[in-house]
Amino acid sequence: MEQQKLEQLLSNMTIEEKVGQLMQFAGHFYATNENRDPVTGPEDLQVSSISVNRSGSVLGSAGAERNREIQERYLEQSRLKIPLLFMADVINGFRTIFPIPLGLGSSWDPKLVEEAQAISAKEASSAGVHVTFAPMVDLVRDPRWGRVMESTGEDSFLNEEFAKASVRGFQGDNLETDLNRVAACVKHFVGYGAVEGGRDYNKVDLSERELRENYLPAFQAALSAGCELVMTAFNTVDSIPASGNQKLMREILRKEFDFNGVLISDYGAVEELIPHGVAADGKEAAKKALLAGVDIEMMSLCYENHLKELIEEGEVPEDLLDEAVMRILQLKNKLGLFENPYRNASARNQEKNINCPEHRKVARKAAEKSCVLLKNEDVLPLSNEKIALIGPYAHNRDILGEWSIFGKQEEAVTLKEGIAQHTSNYVYALGCPMYERSEEALSEAIKAAKDSTHIILALGEGRDWSGEGRSRTSITLAENQLELLRELKKIGKPIIVVLFNGRPLELTEVEGLADGILEAWHPGSEGGAAIANLLFGKANPSGKLTMSFPRTTGQIPVYYNAYNTGRPLPKGSTGRFFSRYIDAPNEPLYPFGFGLSYANFQYESLQLSSNELAANGTIDVQVLVKNQSDYSGEEVVQLYIRDMVGEVVRPVKELKAFQKVFIPANETKQVHFSITEEMLRYHHANLEYKSDAGEFMVFVGTNSADVLSQSFDLK
Amino acid sequence: MEQQKLEQLLSNMTIEEKVGQLMQFAGHFYATNENRDPVTGPEDLQVSSISVNRSGSVLGSAGAERNREIQERYLEQSRLKIPLLFMADVINGFRTIFPIPLGLGSSWDPKLVEEAQAISAKEASSAGVHVTFAPMVDLVRDPRWGRVMESTGEDSFLNEEFAKASVRGFQGDNLETDLNRVAACVKHFVGYGAVEGGRDYNKVDLSERELRENYLPAFQAALSAGCELVMTAFNTVDSIPASGNQKLMREILRKEFDFNGVLISDYGAVEELIPHGVAADGKEAAKKALLAGVDIEMMSLCYENHLKELIEEGEVPEDLLDEAVMRILQLKNKLGLFENPYRNASARNQEKNINCPEHRKVARKAAEKSCVLLKNEDVLPLSNEKIALIGPYAHNRDILGEWSIFGKQEEAVTLKEGIAQHTSNYVYALGCPMYERSEEALSEAIKAAKDSTHIILALGEGRDWSGEGRSRTSITLAENQLELLRELKKIGKPIIVVLFNGRPLELTEVEGLADGILEAWHPGSEGGAAIANLLFGKANPSGKLTMSFPRTTGQIPVYYNAYNTGRPLPKGSTGRFFSRYIDAPNEPLYPFGFGLSYANFQYESLQLSSNELAANGTIDVQVLVKNQSDYSGEEVVQLYIRDMVGEVVRPVKELKAFQKVFIPANETKQVHFSITEEMLRYHHANLEYKSDAGEFMVFVGTNSADVLSQSFDLK
Repeated sequence: MEQQKLEQLLSNMTIEEKVGQLMQFAGHFYATNENRDPVTGPEDLQVSSISVNRSGSVLGSAGAERNREIQERYLEQSRLKIPLLFMADVINGFRTIFPIPLGLGSSWDPKLVEEAQAISAKEASSAGVHVTFAPMVDLVRDPRWGRVMESTGEDSFLNEEFAKASVRGFQGDNLETDLNRVAACVKHFVGYGAVEGGRDYNKVDLSERELRENYLPAFQAALSAGCELVMTAFNTVDSIPASGNQKLMREILRKEFDFNGVLISDYGAVEELIPHGVAADGKEAAKKALLAGVDIEMMSLCYENHLKELIEEGEVPEDLLDEAVMRILQLKNKLGLFENPYRNASARNQEKNINCPEHRKVARKAAEKSCVLLKNEDVLPLSNEKIALIGPYAHNRDILGEWSIFGKQEEAVTLKEGIAQHTSNYVYALGCPMYERSEEALSEAIKAAKDSTHIILALGEGRDWSGEGRSRTSITLAENQLELLRELKKIGKPIIVVLFNGRPLELTEVEGLADGILEAWHPGSEGGAAIANLLFGKANPSGKLTMSFPRTTGQIPVYYNAYNTGRPLPKGSTGRFFSRYIDAPNEPLYPFGFGLSYANFQYESLQLSSNELAANGTIDVQVLVKNQSDYSGEEVVQLYIRDMVGEVVRPVKELKAFQKVFIPANETKQVHFSITEEMLRYHHANLEYKSDAGEFMVFVGTNSADVLSQSFDLK
Repeated sequence: MEQQKLEQLLSNMTIEEKVGQLMQFAGHFYATNENRDPVTGPEDLQVSSISVNRSGSVLGSAGAERNREIQERYLEQSRLKIPLLFMADVINGFRTIFPIPLGLGSSWDPKLVEEAQAISAKEASSAGVHVTFAPMVDLVRDPRWGRVMESTGEDSFLNEEFAKASVRGFQGDNLETDLNRVAACVKHFVGYGAVEGGRDYNKVDLSERELRENYLPAFQAALSAGCELVMTAFNTVDSIPASGNQKLMREILRKEFDFNGVLISDYGAVEELIPHGVAADGKEAAKKALLAGVDIEMMSLCYENHLKELIEEGEVPEDLLDEAVMRILQLKNKLGLFENPYRNASARNQEKNINCPEHRKVARKAAEKSCVLLKNEDVLPLSNEKIALIGPYAHNRDILGEWSIFGKQEEAVTLKEGIAQHTSNYVYALGCPMYERSEEALSEAIKAAKDSTHIILALGEGRDWSGEGRSRTSITLAENQLELLRELKKIGKPIIVVLFNGRPLELTEVEGLADGILEAWHPGSEGGAAIANLLFGKANPSGKLTMSFPRTTGQIPVYYNAYNTGRPLPKGSTGRFFSRYIDAPNEPLYPFGFGLSYANFQYESLQLSSNELAANGTIDVQVLVKNQSDYSGEEVVQLYIRDMVGEVVRPVKELKAFQKVFIPANETKQVHFSITEEMLRYHHANLEYKSDAGEFMVFVGTNSADVLSQSFDLK
């Protein structure tokens, strides 16, 4: 449809119809009584069928038949025949489930993420979904926060790369013509990952500089990749809830970032302006949200109940309503819904696309590349050992992660099933349930361990300890699981711990007891197969952490791109007047970028093409990476930069580039990077974004702590 | 001396002499070789005797004879005869030591703090000290930080009250005529208490709103009370080190707060602009510090080595140097040093004032009022029980706290000595050393406990786990002490734990095992006597916490004046989508303002004189506090306010007034407060400080969690 026609359509709409476009309700509000789902979430809306019948979009409904039926019935009774938009949380897969985003991020492989999200889009669109509430690009430095599982970690640059890759994967090149795609909605604008104390929905306090240096760039990156929607955050920013924050949304998002797409509130977030304490009632909440620029109100009724009155009273200009409606109409038009309100939804497409072998193959590859080998005292890979496979995750299908709402656990491959593809020389024992001890299970496990040469111990956090509303004050494994590990350790056999979890854990005790540790996250549908391929050397671990793993909860926040401080602790010093803890090192247990391989990669001969960089020039950085082993494998070569003297303090290191390179056994690769002036910019005292002449250090290495370095000057 | 003469003096000074006034070196730089003290801290200066001989002030030197001798020798060789200024850390007492500030603050008794600091000033001035580096008014929400011991806690209003009281106590009404006083130096400007991860000297990131709402007010309060000096902080604020931060010091401190006194760097903080990464060398550090407004450079040589050159090159206007020198000359003049360079320093004054019985009496009173009774299951007060007195703090003189540099441990009263004043019916056993277990000491303690009816167990953090550079990732008691408690618990006798520590501790396990808990902090010279008076009912506990005690380290930060969030957890709910932890409550173990008494105070009949407040009016708040017990005692009646709807989110409660009232046994007191419009102001979206019409809640109670409430409207 042409813009002119959209304008005509808008001009024909009543205020009620316009407001309706701004409303989003859950799928079951539209379903017939037989199909009503239970209401989820903290809200229990009292909403009339009139409101539902003129609303603009649907939350969380999927299934070709179901969504076609809802759309059909809706259009039948609709005066202007504006089709519904179907939005849903397709986070790490629709039915074929990939690793959780924190795992996918650990691949350091944006192409892989793009491929995975293209599959997610294909499956979801076949099931009648038009928009996914992804990617989440919130930077996180606090593993207590349950939603850390949905993030790609603590680094702004990595988050940018994954944001772009996700958007490309979901949206493709042309949403209107490529029906296998869905529109992406980048979230949560902004700062949600910095909730105080890691407690979900809590206050966020950041300087504007911190916001601009670390939290906003991934949103800009997503928008630069064409991301169609943005979702507001639940939290406050500068003490104003994001969903009513004019500076964030009108000034920064709309004006500065030039975003003209649809801005949707998070679930109930408009009404939550009341408990936040910035709106006395729903009317004030509606006013604040619309003035701040929220187009769609998800699952609360402030717009529905009050916008008309606010406009009639002159409290809100009707122009703002019209703009919001136009953006929604334009999105529907971009998706081709006016011509084809059902888009890709068909039983045939579902049948063909969903959970097909091709997709499963990518899910397996993704899980292989997401696992991070944290420790390996010559115990991996396995070949013909007699294995005791123990633990609550050893034969458990609940490995799809918290956001896999359209996935099916019965389609997941367990670790036991994966291992059975490689060997029959194993025994399985539960060891303990997820959170309780069991004397019987423990003694069975001990017996199994005694009869074996090696122990594979599959531990972790249940899905119910992870995700939204699931913040933890302690980030260790459950005590019963630690006990199981301690008891098995006494037997004296090598122990390989495989971890299934949704956040960086405090692994200090595990590190001391295990001979090998493989971090598998919640790995998705093909989890068990992928892990077994790694354990048996059919695949070589190549994942790298995107978040530091603290030694202890009391180190939080600990992250690599910190400041030097005025009193940096000299290496090995135990002096008093330095920036340090008296009972723990400053360093995390595993640093950002860390991950082992079965190969042995050695870095040599870091060379710069020049030690001077002209403003419009480049420096070529070259390093040799030798694979001194008989295992071929992939290595993530990481380049960090430090600005030695800034107008404001610059981090001790910042990731500026990385390459995932395959290096055959016993071969060497020359890896090149280009340094440009653009990479050296930062926000100055007055927030101006530019670079300064002067000295810089460049670091290249296998993780953020283990690097070669050289210096150069920007002229 | 008149201003005109000071100006004449300034005009006679060479650049070198001017720069010299800006330099401060440690006392031993001036002492003869025989008296040289060891250098402390991270700096080891290479400084010439020429520089020392024209410097302006002396760090950390005390003793009438010593300081007189330094001054005499200095003036002898000085061309212009400008006397030295002697500055030292007199934090919670000079020789008579009061409880650490975190303890003194727990008295909620500004008059007492004023009295204590007047004594500190009297003793210090007798020993030749002119300026004390106190009060520290840094707001702290993170007990991991070692310097929390020097603070008065998490509340801005309380910090303001104590800031003013301290300044009044140190300075009196007239510094020039009252020789028993010292000039006060409020510190650390600003935000030092918010170091990330509680790690000393670490980065601080705060929004300007947070800075203005919570961190700046106590500085303004100190200045309003006439505080003569301000010290810079070590940390960054908005990524610029405070000691080189023009916005903080030129714009806010000098212009906005109209501060014309002396601004001194913290120890080495000017040179630390280099490791911070905002200065390439000492010259740039000197330039940034002077431009930012630092008058005195403490213990580094950037000004000395580079200021002259910077002025000659036109990089720094000589006017700025002149202004800095003039402020220093004016301070010396205010202290009357031109007329009497020795001021109060004399052997006679020392003899008369220092550690005199009068001062000790106040120290005892202060310690009594600083202790906080955290738990009492009908075990206190004691009378004629047979007591086993156990623990590393049971007979330990190291109870003066980390900043008691001029105190003498041999003059401290131990708990054992205090108890001996009340009863001879006790046995003493060490139980364990401070941090190690001892089988022998443990079995002696068990024996002592078995022979007794009650156990007093004196546990805590050693001084060496507290104070500057002493951040901890874990804030529990040492494991050996917890073991001692567990073992004693098995005996089945009532256990009263007395805690000596410098920070809020994680006491969850202690709370479960002890029948009574008395938080005594590091209580100072009369600690043992004061605690014994409380244990035996000769004094009634009246202290209240000024910081929340977390249940677990993973709750940090937890503080009372938090935000409601958009999804506050309903009381008793275990629902998922609320702001909560899944493994711990949101609430701390002991809330802000909490502290028990032997009396039983009941609050009743909270009444407001009106439910409407006019802009220039007041509301009288009245509450009845009944002492339903046979113990007379003091109660801190606390008044909190909440602004129900703000332009920005307002805290769920803010302390706005308190009164410490004495209520005789079985009597009732009517307590009155006045609410005015001024108490309702806050920083709006654009940082404007004003109030809004609308609804407010007022809460009155015995602590921040246990309150009566009423509402009123501001018209």
